[in-house]
Amino acid sequence: MIIGIDMMGGDLAPLEAVKGVQQYLLSENTKAELQLIGDAPQLEKLLSDFPVPQNKITLLHAAEEIGMHEHPTRALKEKKQSGIALGFAHLAAGKTDAFISAGNSGAMLVGAAHIIQPIAGVLRPTIPSIMPQTNGQTGLLLDVGLNVDCKPEHLHQFGIMGAMYAQYILGIEQPKVGLINIGEESSKGNQLTKMAFELLQKDKQLHFIGNIEGRDLLTGKTDVMVCDGFTGNILLKFAESLFGISQHEASESRYFQKFNFENYGGTPVLGIRQPVIMGHGISGALAFKNMICLAENIIQKKLLGEMKLQMA
Amino acid sequence: MIIGIDMMGGDLAPLEAVKGVQQYLLSENTKAELQLIGDAPQLEKLLSDFPVPQNKITLLHAAEEIGMHEHPTRALKEKKQSGIALGFAHLAAGKTDAFISAGNSGAMLVGAAHIIQPIAGVLRPTIPSIMPQTNGQTGLLLDVGLNVDCKPEHLHQFGIMGAMYAQYILGIEQPKVGLINIGEESSKGNQLTKMAFELLQKDKQLHFIGNIEGRDLLTGKTDVMVCDGFTGNILLKFAESLFGISQHEASESRYFQKFNFENYGGTPVLGIRQPVIMGHGISGALAFKNMICLAENIIQKKLLGEMKLQMA
Repeated sequence: MIIGIDMMGGDLAPLEAVKGVQQYLLSENTKAELQLIGDAPQLEKLLSDFPVPQNKITLLHAAEEIGMHEHPTRALKEKKQSGIALGFAHLAAGKTDAFISAGNSGAMLVGAAHIIQPIAGVLRPTIPSIMPQTNGQTGLLLDVGLNVDCKPEHLHQFGIMGAMYAQYILGIEQPKVGLINIGEESSKGNQLTKMAFELLQKDKQLHFIGNIEGRDLLTGKTDVMVCDGFTGNILLKFAESLFGISQHEASESRYFQKFNFENYGGTPVLGIRQPVIMGHGISGALAFKNMICLAENIIQKKLLGEMKLQMA
Repeated sequence: MIIGIDMMGGDLAPLEAVKGVQQYLLSENTKAELQLIGDAPQLEKLLSDFPVPQNKITLLHAAEEIGMHEHPTRALKEKKQSGIALGFAHLAAGKTDAFISAGNSGAMLVGAAHIIQPIAGVLRPTIPSIMPQTNGQTGLLLDVGLNVDCKPEHLHQFGIMGAMYAQYILGIEQPKVGLINIGEESSKGNQLTKMAFELLQKDKQLHFIGNIEGRDLLTGKTDVMVCDGFTGNILLKFAESLFGISQHEASESRYFQKFNFENYGGTPVLGIRQPVIMGHGISGALAFKNMICLAENIIQKKLLGEMKLQMA
């Protein structure tokens, strides 16, 4: 397998990207070769400082860069020689098996939706995020911002895709799926969640446990937490802020430490035809390494093949 | 001023209610007389254990009770001799100046909307909640669950009413108002928040600071945080869960201690013609005392008179 990486994306690139690549390639049992996309002279110089097995990498020169604040669609169209455009082109052409970037997230999403395209049957691709649980389990929250106005059938599909991701990638057998709502009873909610509840309830392939409330998001009540991208984005950023607060408080809470989302690397775009991983703008070496591991895992577990079967 | 209190509402009533009444009446500079509504024999016995100045209270016998899980509308209609029905009847008749209950919250909301009725011009009454801020300031989040499906003009009015509450009751001069959203730019958001942004922006009487994100909810960025009741309910319950988690973690965070919402007493229903305060089901003596103080404060600052002028 070959994983393409935009080495210039993110505030700390290319240095941290190169260090992350080195960490990955010096680990045991790595399965992927890496296509490093970026400014070749800069990358060659950094790779002489942080050497890696030469047979595991190929360099792909990118003569342009998409800035963090450029207009996504326009930039992707006009800068064909940027790392993001080249990465998507190689992924779409089957020359790589996954693509990772910590760069302009808008451009990543536009590329995912329009160059890679949704899996047949998927109404809306979605992005999940890990929500660490107080009982040590790993929760999955989705959608966290890609779809701010949702229909009930979108939430139903988020439940299906989230459960598959939890099963194949997080290793949870028969993941429980909960719908984020304002009360536990099936009659509770806004128009969207009342209708989504019925769709999730009817789906016998899902282990749907019903509605969950705001107080249940961290307590291990369920594995997959489904909501629209407006709610999910606000919840995720709220949760992210707890890490900073707990640090400032010097409370030394080991639990709130887990809200340092940098550790998790990045998030996949689910529901598109090939693996695409988006990183935080301030991804460091560990985040880059973890994103490569995640891409490797998604390829190896054949998640997208399974998803194509399920969603068809 | 006379404040009516449902002494039988809440899981710990009437004992904790009586203790809260005593705490209030034994404090200095209390301004209100209290109408204690409930089972008279029980109350008389408890008041002999927890004596209060007799000239400060009147007892109103309630021969019925509305349980925590009864159907709100039906119970309110059928149980005319319940504490909640009697409390609203006396408030509506002008015999009391405020009404407090920690009982069936559905019945409280039905009574607030249909017996007391909205202030002229108010499209939707709303309930706010305190959100303690890391810089020591007091934030106000609204709506926290009364209005799960909102229109832009509802959010605009929540901003106005929240700002008035922050000014008159929380004592914040020129309170800043922020709209909870998925990004700071005015172009960000779902259909609802994009349109609400424009209404809030146009209102020159408000100190509108624009969109705020999930990460800004605890950091003192703004005084009033506006959202629909679906988002607000989930955020509030999420925040409430932090107190339990921080206790469990033994992290001794003084900040997360503030998320013990029991300390705050209760929440007013804003936008109706008279002061109504709803308490948590598990309100203890301190919560009851704080609810009485809040009612006293709302009456004394003439908040509702100002609101009637503003919203007309």
